[in-house]
Amino acid sequence: MEDKSSAATGVRSIRCRAAVCRKAGEPLVMEEIMVAPPMDREVRIRIICTSLCHSDITFWRMKDPPGIFPRIFGHEAIGVVESVGKDVNEVKEGDTVIPTFMADCGECRDCLSDKSNLCSKFPFQVSPGMPRCGTTRFTDLNGHPLYHFMFVSSFSEYTVVDIVNVIKIDPSIPPNMACLLSCGVSTGVGAAWRTANVEKGSTVAIFGMGAIGLAVAEGARICGAAKIIGVDVNPDKFETANKFGVTDFVHAGNLGNKSSSQVIIEMTDGGADYCFECVGMPSLVHEAYAACRQGWGKTIVLGVAKPGSLLSFSFLDVIHFGKILVGSLFGGLKPKSDIPTLVQLYKDEKLELDKFVTQEIGFKDINEAFNLLIEGKSLRCVIWMNK
Amino acid sequence: MEDKSSAATGVRSIRCRAAVCRKAGEPLVMEEIMVAPPMDREVRIRIICTSLCHSDITFWRMKDPPGIFPRIFGHEAIGVVESVGKDVNEVKEGDTVIPTFMADCGECRDCLSDKSNLCSKFPFQVSPGMPRCGTTRFTDLNGHPLYHFMFVSSFSEYTVVDIVNVIKIDPSIPPNMACLLSCGVSTGVGAAWRTANVEKGSTVAIFGMGAIGLAVAEGARICGAAKIIGVDVNPDKFETANKFGVTDFVHAGNLGNKSSSQVIIEMTDGGADYCFECVGMPSLVHEAYAACRQGWGKTIVLGVAKPGSLLSFSFLDVIHFGKILVGSLFGGLKPKSDIPTLVQLYKDEKLELDKFVTQEIGFKDINEAFNLLIEGKSLRCVIWMNK
Repeated sequence: MEDKSSAATGVRSIRCRAAVCRKAGEPLVMEEIMVAPPMDREVRIRIICTSLCHSDITFWRMKDPPGIFPRIFGHEAIGVVESVGKDVNEVKEGDTVIPTFMADCGECRDCLSDKSNLCSKFPFQVSPGMPRCGTTRFTDLNGHPLYHFMFVSSFSEYTVVDIVNVIKIDPSIPPNMACLLSCGVSTGVGAAWRTANVEKGSTVAIFGMGAIGLAVAEGARICGAAKIIGVDVNPDKFETANKFGVTDFVHAGNLGNKSSSQVIIEMTDGGADYCFECVGMPSLVHEAYAACRQGWGKTIVLGVAKPGSLLSFSFLDVIHFGKILVGSLFGGLKPKSDIPTLVQLYKDEKLELDKFVTQEIGFKDINEAFNLLIEGKSLRCVIWMNK
Repeated sequence: MEDKSSAATGVRSIRCRAAVCRKAGEPLVMEEIMVAPPMDREVRIRIICTSLCHSDITFWRMKDPPGIFPRIFGHEAIGVVESVGKDVNEVKEGDTVIPTFMADCGECRDCLSDKSNLCSKFPFQVSPGMPRCGTTRFTDLNGHPLYHFMFVSSFSEYTVVDIVNVIKIDPSIPPNMACLLSCGVSTGVGAAWRTANVEKGSTVAIFGMGAIGLAVAEGARICGAAKIIGVDVNPDKFETANKFGVTDFVHAGNLGNKSSSQVIIEMTDGGADYCFECVGMPSLVHEAYAACRQGWGKTIVLGVAKPGSLLSFSFLDVIHFGKILVGSLFGGLKPKSDIPTLVQLYKDEKLELDKFVTQEIGFKDINEAFNLLIEGKSLRCVIWMNK
């Protein structure tokens, strides 16, 4: 709902609806808010649809800093450029774009390198404001600031995003598919494709069969892995996992005296070529490391752990078995070049995004998306802004 | 000194001199011993010269298991095949060979893979006997067994080595250069060349300027690294290090409030591309990991720590910085294919082995080699068996 009092969009504030979180863990409240015009190198975007990711839940629950309120969550989305600030040449009004929490400035040593996706000019952080100045573009109708989330804040009909976090994409991809590429699905698929570079015929073990783990499986399947082992404490997840290319299951917690790594070593004749930890638990990283093959096995850590968590390895094991440990943020993807590639993979019917969408709801019902994800009934719930 | 009572070499035991260690930490004793004929798939080798490595010292000092005595140490050597056991087709009498502690069976999944140097049929272990059966080929003149060390035991005029631990080499390389390729120098050069795959123009930081660290520098120099930073608590080592390609020095322990990783990050505008830990101290691995570049930095662990040592990393740092941690045994080299390549690199005047030889002595003076290495006065002391 645009502010009819504005003479023109792009230069004036927009009045629109947003789902505001006023207090940690409380239901979002649909409010009328004001979205300021984009400043230099910023883009104002009309969100088409958005989806809910576990990181939204994590920070929605967070009472203490970096938890901060009132805040507009949401960081998986697709939208259309409504207006651009000064010195934005990369996109123009009407372009279809995906906003991402990962910056891609195109200028720093990392962005210029093929080997890194960690922009050093705009490093990853869960900031309450815009990346360049830290200020907000949202205010409530009393003029009080509303904080941003992960440089995206897509639970609003309009949002302002820095150009380094905006990716122009082919508009022919359905919006409810495209929004998934903003974070979770890209993270998992990218971890298999970019960070691990899974080879055809290889063996893969994935710890955690949530949306990220399933996205890793999808990536490994596309890369041609011969055996994809899913590990989870909940056996109900295995039926779904199979649709994502998971060929074998390890029901952790029901292995008698064996550890999941022992079982995986037996299943793979010595250990998996690639192990992915998608939960964020140190003990699972240790199992993943133990389960990967000596000589070349690679353990990729994707799960986000609590601050202060440590990973510990035996020094002699590290030397004697030649395994590789690597962390992966956003799946090692370089947003501006790799997200369009994923869009194309979808269009070529290789990347099957539809499998991730378990529900689609209207914006007014956004709290239902939270309930579904918390109750484990959802992989991705797409929230349409115009419904 | 061969046993004149034997009718023929190769089928009878040989009586010869060996430097036997009868008790942990005590000087080696020059004794007459009996060396049994090689059994199936074994090779009896007349040692030409041998050099002393820190691992010899470590196990020479070790009172408790896996320390075991009486033992014949030595695992860096070159020799000539004196006789072969049944089913040995790879080498014949008179061939010049390097024995190594690392097996290369040529048949297992690891040996057949380009990616692993960790033979799974004959895994690395500090065994007191032969790899296939665990028995010894050495006895003293009272008929009591003398234990082996790392499948080589080169502190004897003759030794018996399994064919999986024997590498045939071009005999034109001087023996006092070739023996260095058995362990230490290969480990360091290999870590830069094979495990890290150091790229031309890259930045390298090496923690520990002992023989292994200097061999890493030599490898990095050959690979074309632009900046090679040596880190050591002993500033006296820096003059020598410069000869091995070290371009910059960090005198750890004299950095005021800064850590070596902070200094390296400043020197490299964000961190080194490759960091090598060559000492075996967890705290140095942590510094190496901290000093390597986000996005692509690789930490290679070569140093051998005390059993039970742990390496601990912040879970969130692992995810957020995309660094790679990998252990390296024998520098990731596949003995049978890579050692001949190193021999050729020496012949092509690219690999400068002569810089590592700080002393050359006769076999009877072998205890002097121990003193020199313990006192830090030696990189490699070559011990000639016929002097």
